[in-house]
Amino acid sequence: MKRQGPKVVIAGAGFGGLEAARALRRSPVDVTVVDRQNHHCFQPLLYQVATAALSPADVAWPIRHILRDQRNATVLMASVKGADTQQRFLQTDIGNVPYDYLVIATGAMHSYFGHDEWAQTAPGLKRIEDATRIRRGILIAFERAEATNDEAERRRLLTFVIVGGGATGVEMAGAIAEVALQTLAADFRRIDPRSARIVLIEAGPRILPTFPEDLSAYVHDTLVHDGVTVMTTTRVTRCDAGGVDLDGGRIDAATVIWAAGVMASPAAQWLGAEADSAGRVKVEPDLSVPGHPQVFVIGDTAAVMSPDGRPVPGIAPAAKQMGRYAGRLIASRIAGNSAAKPFRYVHAGDLATVGRRAAVVKLGRLQLKGFVGWLFWSLAHIYFLIGLRNRFIVAFTWLWSYLTFQRGARLITHSEPDQDPPNQL
Amino acid sequence: MKRQGPKVVIAGAGFGGLEAARALRRSPVDVTVVDRQNHHCFQPLLYQVATAALSPADVAWPIRHILRDQRNATVLMASVKGADTQQRFLQTDIGNVPYDYLVIATGAMHSYFGHDEWAQTAPGLKRIEDATRIRRGILIAFERAEATNDEAERRRLLTFVIVGGGATGVEMAGAIAEVALQTLAADFRRIDPRSARIVLIEAGPRILPTFPEDLSAYVHDTLVHDGVTVMTTTRVTRCDAGGVDLDGGRIDAATVIWAAGVMASPAAQWLGAEADSAGRVKVEPDLSVPGHPQVFVIGDTAAVMSPDGRPVPGIAPAAKQMGRYAGRLIASRIAGNSAAKPFRYVHAGDLATVGRRAAVVKLGRLQLKGFVGWLFWSLAHIYFLIGLRNRFIVAFTWLWSYLTFQRGARLITHSEPDQDPPNQL
Repeated sequence: MKRQGPKVVIAGAGFGGLEAARALRRSPVDVTVVDRQNHHCFQPLLYQVATAALSPADVAWPIRHILRDQRNATVLMASVKGADTQQRFLQTDIGNVPYDYLVIATGAMHSYFGHDEWAQTAPGLKRIEDATRIRRGILIAFERAEATNDEAERRRLLTFVIVGGGATGVEMAGAIAEVALQTLAADFRRIDPRSARIVLIEAGPRILPTFPEDLSAYVHDTLVHDGVTVMTTTRVTRCDAGGVDLDGGRIDAATVIWAAGVMASPAAQWLGAEADSAGRVKVEPDLSVPGHPQVFVIGDTAAVMSPDGRPVPGIAPAAKQMGRYAGRLIASRIAGNSAAKPFRYVHAGDLATVGRRAAVVKLGRLQLKGFVGWLFWSLAHIYFLIGLRNRFIVAFTWLWSYLTFQRGARLITHSEPDQDPPNQL
Repeated sequence: MKRQGPKVVIAGAGFGGLEAARALRRSPVDVTVVDRQNHHCFQPLLYQVATAALSPADVAWPIRHILRDQRNATVLMASVKGADTQQRFLQTDIGNVPYDYLVIATGAMHSYFGHDEWAQTAPGLKRIEDATRIRRGILIAFERAEATNDEAERRRLLTFVIVGGGATGVEMAGAIAEVALQTLAADFRRIDPRSARIVLIEAGPRILPTFPEDLSAYVHDTLVHDGVTVMTTTRVTRCDAGGVDLDGGRIDAATVIWAAGVMASPAAQWLGAEADSAGRVKVEPDLSVPGHPQVFVIGDTAAVMSPDGRPVPGIAPAAKQMGRYAGRLIASRIAGNSAAKPFRYVHAGDLATVGRRAAVVKLGRLQLKGFVGWLFWSLAHIYFLIGLRNRFIVAFTWLWSYLTFQRGARLITHSEPDQDPPNQL
């Protein structure tokens, strides 16, 4: 393969990494996108996979396919293990990848505040595998509840705890309520799925803290109306196989879902750079790493300040803006321009949805809620889905489940073909 | 829960088991359907999941949902461990299930002719998990081939061996050829996916032995035209991680798919009944087990003769006919009728498809091939798919991939959320 120009290596094919690659499509560079997965995952809709509304393939798309027409881009499926900023290569599980410019966009994982062992029983929701694991857990809980004769165990099996009242936690709680109240209502003979207990736990004083207070209150009321127990100013002190301990109390639950905190991928260690308490690399105003003007860190892995002095939030539009900025900056440098305006984040707005037909939208001065909010939320998400086919399938699936209350992806699957289903939930 | 009549327990919710349950929908009985999965799998389309054309949820449907409106039916997710024909209960991993009538419809698994260790490297295709495992293997092979600099290893990675020239083997070979020639052709930079070698190995003198010779020859020619190497009268003597040994020779291949033989589920052992060499229970003309007139074995688990003296084939229509017969016989017995006509299999025909737009159909004296055959094959499969939604999604997905050559489900996923992809293919 002929090398045609400066080598730009992009680690991570999330929103930020892909946008950086695209920004370089007309530059005389040789782009290599490295990701440990073969697919880009549309994380904002992952909770719909976890609650059996969409299939994994509806919210994920092969990275190669996204970049197939960008002839200066190569895709490598590999896990990043480190970086050598002196010799300038990225270390991966399948070998070293030399770079002239490096963009780190490897995102974030869940953080259990020092209790990594909670991950065993309280999975978070970042990857396709997390979503199918949670889906399996939720569906198996109903199956086991139908099969047991032990009343206390049945209560435990039908209790679902979501830790964290941000957008992901709210969306999971709303979707699980919909599964129990609508989708499964008539499918069981011994249990009534509508008796399921869904508990959303938030440490702060209100859910959706980044939203205006009235939208926050509206979502709170909608969840309560749908049968969700919302507990604010409540801290989870322990997660185990039987449930969760709270500040003062205990909830027995077979299903616990973690939506409370994130920790950046270990880019600071790879680069020997300074990080904040969430592991994010403290970057220069041009998103480069101090002392390494040819290395950039973007998206959830970077600690960046907004013009208003608040940290840039860990959401898709922010990652995309950083990716576009870094890609253009590299293109401009290669074209011989050395001066660059610092990165400036523009906050477009916040969206969250709660179950069926109710969403909250905050875009500048525009605030929407209820059905109009849901419609806006749906259109926005369909619009941003990569790939024409996925847009059609998701739109059709939503319309279908809107009309029928059904969810088409209620599969309990596991990976080993010849063994019985695992006993743990 | 009130018990309302004689207890009919059906083990297995495949084509046969579901049909038996449906045949009892108007009877004053209490039906319990036991399956270790929560979903019915539409096996004839499983190869499309294995080759990334469809998502698992497109070819599977929750058993509870299928039976939700049949109020006399209960579904239990449990693995059958045995049966006590004296005390009359089915033994499962979650307890005993008493019966008055028992229908065993637990299907078949792959058979490696005494070499169970081959299953490690040469998976068969019976369940959703098999399909996603094979899909992962095929896609990872291309990824690894793109990453390696070792020419021999690259050849091995791009060699795909399918053992067994029946309908499943032919369909897999055709679909993998399509993936390599069309879907992936433009997605890689270092390898040319079109150089992939796809080898279909059949021990007998011709592929599709149940079809007329001219249709068999047509499929053979179509496969060869699509770049598939077809080897007949060739026996595989060993499968290992590096490839396969043949009668006289060796093929190095990273991907080996087993479509050569099946072995019935161990119903004969559970019941202490006599079985044929493929493990199928030798049943009476009314499908009951000798000495146990209230126990029936149907579908791939039963050895039954056609009126023409040939064994009833292990295909969906045969299982459905047996299920309907057994369900109706039980309903009739409960209604007080003791005489019953013996089961009589009616062979409707054979279908097989090879890649894009070419299929062979044999229905009585009607023979179709090429595009007309493919159209018939598509409509027949969409018609038989359970659930209106799945029909729409599959029809749309096929139309889409027909127009674009794309496959929407090219996901490499694995089960453990926090580990790197497994190294084995």
